[in-house]
Amino acid sequence: MRAVQLGKYDSYPELVDVPDPEITSPLDVIVRIGGAGVCRTDLHVIEGQWAEKTNVPLPYTLGHENAGWVAATGSAVTNVAVGDAVILHPLVTCGLCRACRDGNDVHCMNSSFPGIDTDGGYADYLKTTARSAVKLDPSLQPADVAALADAGLTAYHAVAKAARKLRPGDRAVVIGAGGLGHIGVQVLRALSPVEMIVVERNAEALSLAVDLGADHGVIADGSQVDAVLDLTDGHGAEAVIDFVGEGGAIEDGVASLRRNGDYYVIGYGSSLQVPTIDIISTEINFIGNLVGSYNDLAELMVLAARGQVSLHTSAYPLTDFGKALEDLDGGRIRGRAILVP
Amino acid sequence: MRAVQLGKYDSYPELVDVPDPEITSPLDVIVRIGGAGVCRTDLHVIEGQWAEKTNVPLPYTLGHENAGWVAATGSAVTNVAVGDAVILHPLVTCGLCRACRDGNDVHCMNSSFPGIDTDGGYADYLKTTARSAVKLDPSLQPADVAALADAGLTAYHAVAKAARKLRPGDRAVVIGAGGLGHIGVQVLRALSPVEMIVVERNAEALSLAVDLGADHGVIADGSQVDAVLDLTDGHGAEAVIDFVGEGGAIEDGVASLRRNGDYYVIGYGSSLQVPTIDIISTEINFIGNLVGSYNDLAELMVLAARGQVSLHTSAYPLTDFGKALEDLDGGRIRGRAILVP
Amino acid sequence: MRAVQLGKYDSYPELVDVPDPEITSPLDVIVRIGGAGVCRTDLHVIEGQWAEKTNVPLPYTLGHENAGWVAATGSAVTNVAVGDAVILHPLVTCGLCRACRDGNDVHCMNSSFPGIDTDGGYADYLKTTARSAVKLDPSLQPADVAALADAGLTAYHAVAKAARKLRPGDRAVVIGAGGLGHIGVQVLRALSPVEMIVVERNAEALSLAVDLGADHGVIADGSQVDAVLDLTDGHGAEAVIDFVGEGGAIEDGVASLRRNGDYYVIGYGSSLQVPTIDIISTEINFIGNLVGSYNDLAELMVLAARGQVSLHTSAYPLTDFGKALEDLDGGRIRGRAILVP
Amino acid sequence: MRAVQLGKYDSYPELVDVPDPEITSPLDVIVRIGGAGVCRTDLHVIEGQWAEKTNVPLPYTLGHENAGWVAATGSAVTNVAVGDAVILHPLVTCGLCRACRDGNDVHCMNSSFPGIDTDGGYADYLKTTARSAVKLDPSLQPADVAALADAGLTAYHAVAKAARKLRPGDRAVVIGAGGLGHIGVQVLRALSPVEMIVVERNAEALSLAVDLGADHGVIADGSQVDAVLDLTDGHGAEAVIDFVGEGGAIEDGVASLRRNGDYYVIGYGSSLQVPTIDIISTEINFIGNLVGSYNDLAELMVLAARGQVSLHTSAYPLTDFGKALEDLDGGRIRGRAILVP
Repeated sequence: MRAVQLGKYDSYPELVDVPDPEITSPLDVIVRIGGAGVCRTDLHVIEGQWAEKTNVPLPYTLGHENAGWVAATGSAVTNVAVGDAVILHPLVTCGLCRACRDGNDVHCMNSSFPGIDTDGGYADYLKTTARSAVKLDPSLQPADVAALADAGLTAYHAVAKAARKLRPGDRAVVIGAGGLGHIGVQVLRALSPVEMIVVERNAEALSLAVDLGADHGVIADGSQVDAVLDLTDGHGAEAVIDFVGEGGAIEDGVASLRRNGDYYVIGYGSSLQVPTIDIISTEINFIGNLVGSYNDLAELMVLAARGQVSLHTSAYPLTDFGKALEDLDGGRIRGRAILVP
Repeated sequence: MRAVQLGKYDSYPELVDVPDPEITSPLDVIVRIGGAGVCRTDLHVIEGQWAEKTNVPLPYTLGHENAGWVAATGSAVTNVAVGDAVILHPLVTCGLCRACRDGNDVHCMNSSFPGIDTDGGYADYLKTTARSAVKLDPSLQPADVAALADAGLTAYHAVAKAARKLRPGDRAVVIGAGGLGHIGVQVLRALSPVEMIVVERNAEALSLAVDLGADHGVIADGSQVDAVLDLTDGHGAEAVIDFVGEGGAIEDGVASLRRNGDYYVIGYGSSLQVPTIDIISTEINFIGNLVGSYNDLAELMVLAARGQVSLHTSAYPLTDFGKALEDLDGGRIRGRAILVP
Repeated sequence: MRAVQLGKYDSYPELVDVPDPEITSPLDVIVRIGGAGVCRTDLHVIEGQWAEKTNVPLPYTLGHENAGWVAATGSAVTNVAVGDAVILHPLVTCGLCRACRDGNDVHCMNSSFPGIDTDGGYADYLKTTARSAVKLDPSLQPADVAALADAGLTAYHAVAKAARKLRPGDRAVVIGAGGLGHIGVQVLRALSPVEMIVVERNAEALSLAVDLGADHGVIADGSQVDAVLDLTDGHGAEAVIDFVGEGGAIEDGVASLRRNGDYYVIGYGSSLQVPTIDIISTEINFIGNLVGSYNDLAELMVLAARGQVSLHTSAYPLTDFGKALEDLDGGRIRGRAILVP
Repeated sequence: MRAVQLGKYDSYPELVDVPDPEITSPLDVIVRIGGAGVCRTDLHVIEGQWAEKTNVPLPYTLGHENAGWVAATGSAVTNVAVGDAVILHPLVTCGLCRACRDGNDVHCMNSSFPGIDTDGGYADYLKTTARSAVKLDPSLQPADVAALADAGLTAYHAVAKAARKLRPGDRAVVIGAGGLGHIGVQVLRALSPVEMIVVERNAEALSLAVDLGADHGVIADGSQVDAVLDLTDGHGAEAVIDFVGEGGAIEDGVASLRRNGDYYVIGYGSSLQVPTIDIISTEINFIGNLVGSYNDLAELMVLAARGQVSLHTSAYPLTDFGKALEDLDGGRIRGRAILVP
């Protein structure tokens, strides 16, 4: 089969011929790729930023946001069948450790990460296990949802956690309505009637957020904290959901948080720096967020099938992987680029 | 190997020679049995009460409360190794359905139940999977804890659920301090400083419950509801944990429940019959309880290793299975009979 | 002032002149009534069905669903001011008992119930306390929301409790889309993207429920359990929210419930009768529901102000109370009758 | 009556004669002081550190950890009666704001703080309201428990929050076993069978913590992180409960935390400084903690009455307030100094 592999760091990956993957274990699943998301992380991998963390032996196949159709299954697979359209959870997890047994499989103690530390989905086929395959509703196409497998799942996980605590009459500030943020806005609107305030630098992205259900759009022009306080009777919001995490977003976010509020950290880059006296005197919480669980992904797909979450995508043939990566690097992609074999 | 098999209903099982189980799948685990609990359910199985429900083909091997040592493992097993002492969760679950992925594996949609619908542990060896094996602390012996695998796990599951809602100052009524109940009393004492009231007909069992940490023992002589109301300022208890479920226990239990209280149904036999007006005007809840999850069993083993839960057992050689069943049927066993191969 | 008082049971109430209420305590609030809901409970009160339960001395003023404008306040009132439009929580609570201190004020140990056991809102003015007054958003009129104060609040309380456990992909069956039920449908749609199945005998009410956001309408013609099972892959729903509670609704509801599901009891009339073996083998729960808390009412008013919950009402002048009661008794009112002084 | 009042900052308070407080409102409660804790915060108040924050007009009476007997009550008080022994919640709250109505009264929007911003308990009598008075079990003496009213309540609040998430088999690290910490150790042992690791610089305090129920004592001599990792199989603990919050405790605490763990901030002094990438890649949470609620205090008193939490105290006559403050300042008090009028 064809696969886009990285042969050495700091040079372009290449389309090569590799053997087709084969079923070797009863829980194995082989997926014919229908779409693989092209992500900024791929550029970082190519530059070698992840080399030391993963120690993945080169060459290997890129692609960590994958969806497609089941092509073959091991003898013990009961949740999907050959021909099923599926989206793949980004991690392959053991199912046996305490975290897996608790539904918290993202913290599996024996996981691998296709496209990052083992062969991914920039290829005709990908080998994974039944534990990573979520069956799609007939209304959903793999290429349309592939990019929800990682970035979208992170947004869902954080926002669903926030929504479980929010009540009508509470306010939530969403910082950043870009890639993850605009998924987050849709998820929050689907899950909660909270009064939603979106803070964003880009006027067009902000306008889209309001179209997607935000109650208030606040342009991040330096006056955003005052604007949020005005909208919250001077008290701040019960929740701040921060998809940016750098460039002053955190300081602004903390200043926008109400006493006893929850600050959801999703975006990253800078540091959280808060005097402990401020944390205890207002009794605020900082909640970390990684990618969601398998069941989180299944729930996000339900929202997608209900039409409550969607994503703009641009399809590229697998052979045009180079152009897709260049377009991403050059800022020429609206929404997400998807490689379609 | 040797196995105690049921050849036909309503006659005694027999000790026969059967082939040793073999590893055929990467998650398989073969356990050398160190102890198998003899349970009243076994008598019911022999009498044919479960025949229609399970359709298990005869002959098959009895024994659904099992512990021992790992004798062999499939290639994908990472949570236990050959030689480990283990206790076995009563169900073999798929790990792939939504319930399994949520840590709620008791509601697995593809489970089997060794000793009930497939070969169990009245034998030298039992074949199960890695998903059912909980590694024991070095301080615990398989024969001592085997009987916690099913009955004890049910008690733990219900009591831990109750304890998560109870606060200091609340009262909990435990109905029944027999087999499950006296485990329940120990678990509740380990998990919560709630004021615990035990209601029991048998004076000796009641006295044991107080020794194990109950704050008050109430003899069930007809005045038990009044006694509970006296102990709760006339309001009843925030929780009733009912290990009996028949013979008037339910009516008494409901009468002992405070407004907005929770009634945990564990024992069974009779029917719950409550006018809906009474349910809504006092806003009470009835909470069903089945056996616990894999992680529940791991937690119960932690309590056992800490010395906070223990069980009186009487060991019988495997060859004396007939005597063990007769002694159980004749009411001559204190605590639990355990078959030791 | 004018007040509609019940002078003796089984005869019609009368419009009489009574002294205006006065502030006597720092937390007192006097409300000029803007609307008082006419409820089937009023008919039962008149018939004497509540006489023994409440021992209210006659004559007294009816009306337990009240909204209006603050006319006077005691010196310690900080949450509302003279002139504010308010809706009144049906109970006057002490604020000092453990339940009140936990936000669970419906289970206050020292509450009174205006219109039921003390003077209510069929009058020009009602005396209550600051603890019962919820300030209305400027977009809401007292006469439009008064009927949400009791029936609507009960629906909100139960549905919000259910929504906190439901996840995308779960199914909820709402039994009954009449008075409470059609509020419940709106609340559930506002709070959750759960797949909502409404079961109702009346085709018009069912059609309205679908217009209000139900995903499926099932006519209760005897085949409703089969229809629900068809819609849930044969497994039943994760939650059943029962606004009927009589006439076979409970049996059907239990048959429509999935393993480990939650049955919310709101409607009442018949008895819950379930063998305990069925409760434990499927591990289902029965959850009682009374009226909601003060904060529940504040949250429901947020949904009303957002336009997510509304109610059809027919206004009657206070002097036409007799006609309103007769129209209610004769089944001639669509939605709710509201007395407007 | 006699009262110890601060007349101006940076000079010693004086014992003066002031008018007895009087009931002026139906919820007022006047308490004859049985014991008032002498706290390091009093020294800070005297030094003027709180002057700007509180703007309290001088002179005023110190003392914010108070217990005693009810001497008089307003007409609407139902939870305590004249003669009752009581401990006083440190805040006087409104009971009307959303936080109060949710049981989260510490975040009351209209609270006062006797001893800090209004007259406190270094006096014969203190005026408060029914909302602050918790009735004591007959086994408890006001002077013995007074010091639990603020510091102890903070420890209870944080530890109870942690205990609600911890399961058997989890590990919790308690940093600091001094004033608050040694209460925290007792509370955690009462509420949870978690494996408790206490980290403390002082060998005597550490030894006391182990006597009070800690499973492991780790001396904070620079090797404490390694010691915790050794005790947790290299993974760190599910919860870190930090009563120190300065001097490297936070950095050590974060290094002792397991993936997806919770860090409870209670002690304060330095800043929390964590790269957001570390927060999201391990998905950890930082949980702020202020003093507990009224119900928290009631629950802590239950633990005290059960003998599960106790505190070493040294009584001083009210007239010896100067010596008590000097002994505290000079580090000559074991446990807590209590002024007894």
